[in-house]
Amino acid sequence: MEVDTCPSPAAEPAPAEAEAFDFKGYMLRKAAAVNSALDEAVPLVHPERFYEAMRYSLLAGGKRVRPVLCLAACEVSGGRDACAMPAAVAVEMIHTMSLIHDDLPIMDDDDFRRGRPSCHRAFDDPVALLAGDALTFLAFGHLADPASYPADGSVPPDRIVRAVSELARCAGAGGLVLGQMADMEATGLGNHFSLDQLEFIHLHKTAALLEASVVIGAIVGGASDHQIEQLRNYGRCIGLLFQVVDDILDVTKSSEELGKTAGKDSASDKTTYPKLLGLEKSREFAEELLKDSKEQLAGFDPVKAAPLLHLANYIADRQK
Amino acid sequence: MEVDTCPSPAAEPAPAEAEAFDFKGYMLRKAAAVNSALDEAVPLVHPERFYEAMRYSLLAGGKRVRPVLCLAACEVSGGRDACAMPAAVAVEMIHTMSLIHDDLPIMDDDDFRRGRPSCHRAFDDPVALLAGDALTFLAFGHLADPASYPADGSVPPDRIVRAVSELARCAGAGGLVLGQMADMEATGLGNHFSLDQLEFIHLHKTAALLEASVVIGAIVGGASDHQIEQLRNYGRCIGLLFQVVDDILDVTKSSEELGKTAGKDSASDKTTYPKLLGLEKSREFAEELLKDSKEQLAGFDPVKAAPLLHLANYIADRQK
Repeated sequence: MEVDTCPSPAAEPAPAEAEAFDFKGYMLRKAAAVNSALDEAVPLVHPERFYEAMRYSLLAGGKRVRPVLCLAACEVSGGRDACAMPAAVAVEMIHTMSLIHDDLPIMDDDDFRRGRPSCHRAFDDPVALLAGDALTFLAFGHLADPASYPADGSVPPDRIVRAVSELARCAGAGGLVLGQMADMEATGLGNHFSLDQLEFIHLHKTAALLEASVVIGAIVGGASDHQIEQLRNYGRCIGLLFQVVDDILDVTKSSEELGKTAGKDSASDKTTYPKLLGLEKSREFAEELLKDSKEQLAGFDPVKAAPLLHLANYIADRQK
Repeated sequence: MEVDTCPSPAAEPAPAEAEAFDFKGYMLRKAAAVNSALDEAVPLVHPERFYEAMRYSLLAGGKRVRPVLCLAACEVSGGRDACAMPAAVAVEMIHTMSLIHDDLPIMDDDDFRRGRPSCHRAFDDPVALLAGDALTFLAFGHLADPASYPADGSVPPDRIVRAVSELARCAGAGGLVLGQMADMEATGLGNHFSLDQLEFIHLHKTAALLEASVVIGAIVGGASDHQIEQLRNYGRCIGLLFQVVDDILDVTKSSEELGKTAGKDSASDKTTYPKLLGLEKSREFAEELLKDSKEQLAGFDPVKAAPLLHLANYIADRQK
């Protein structure tokens, strides 16, 4: 991760940015479209308990940051929402699957997720395991189903193949799952591991799927290779930013404000940015990442890039 | 499942078949090629324990029936091995992943697999869960990576998209995982569920991935839609046959002969074909399925179809 050595003084959006673009309205509209596509992608059929478990976790709310990033990256690349919706659905399914498996007693053993019982608590362990597995297959099935795309051929098969390949890499042994494994091995080492190791974990566990969301959106939207690489850098910056902000919030906010257990990271032996860098330097690092992410958008049409720019601000400024 | 009402008198291959084709040599050659491709597809990189777990389960031997079916279906459709090897690797990865997750304590809780400790016993539960997840992503990554295929463009992107879609459907909530879920729900009902329900479970839990192996091989090999449907029927017949033979062997063979616990199905409440139909009728059903599967091959070049025909015999006649 290349980081700009000159931190930007403010993570707040400039007034002009905020006025020109109704970010809240944009997020609400896109999240509603994503929720509707997710609802349609997993109908409640036989055996009901199995599909209920998938729907319980998939339709539990959440900010839908990944699918909205996917739609926004498609837009900035010249594509329409309809082209990126299968990919948006796929990344949210993979994200949900990772949460379900992560919460299992043999992993993090978390009883709550998004303010209600986690999947294995609401159903049981085997159902949660299989619901997670099924969501992975559904994700790839949806991404590779020609019926998911506009019939006008605006997303040709070579783009779909590339999107499948990207999702598999970022979610699997080169990304998310690798990060989970590295995190598991590192937990318990306390402060004995370095900033490089921490960045390795977060770049894989958190940033990889955010990066994939952006890159896949760009691919299906028809971005050039150069544009895809710029958007990949953007995705990697906001991915790491997402985690740094998470670590900061865990220290500075109460459980009530977060809607989940605060101070969990510091109470456990988990290494975090504030632990390694201190709170002030962690905040500076977050500002650098925000600035870097925005720089990647410089070559794009500013109107079309507005959602991605505001998504970066949103990830930096979120309070939970 | 449509079943011929006139059972064929013998499941043994006719002498002419056996003479014309060196099936044993064919299986050894193809399995060796598959093992080498699997070895290459999962290198032992950092973090070693994670990759070791994947390799431990993936390279544990086994008959490689699914990947060989994939190669043979590609061949009968006019393709070369090199075109189908990524798909062959992918189906074996998915098969292995399903075994790893199935053996977990929260599922079947099996301590042994292929004559040695199962993945979670050799490593631990979290590593086994993540190794299974990673194999799923690796499977799709390998299937959709252009670098996996011959550079001459003999497997165009539209075939790859169709193969991804087929694998996702047959492995997921429309196939394997659905079958595992239905099996889990049904176990404990004893004889209280019908032949139709048993067939539903086996068509999904066992037959779906065998069907996918054949169909994906046919797709990448360039089969016509009509040929794909014939080969799908063949795959479904041998898939169900595989399970019926498994059920029969569980009753008739000792643990020593099987290399796994015999009589496990009858000792548990698991419904099997011999329990529902009796041993004699189960054998007749197996013969019908073998005959049906061979009929699907009638329209293909007999020389190129020989491996599939002998694979059907092999599945019918296997003694463990």
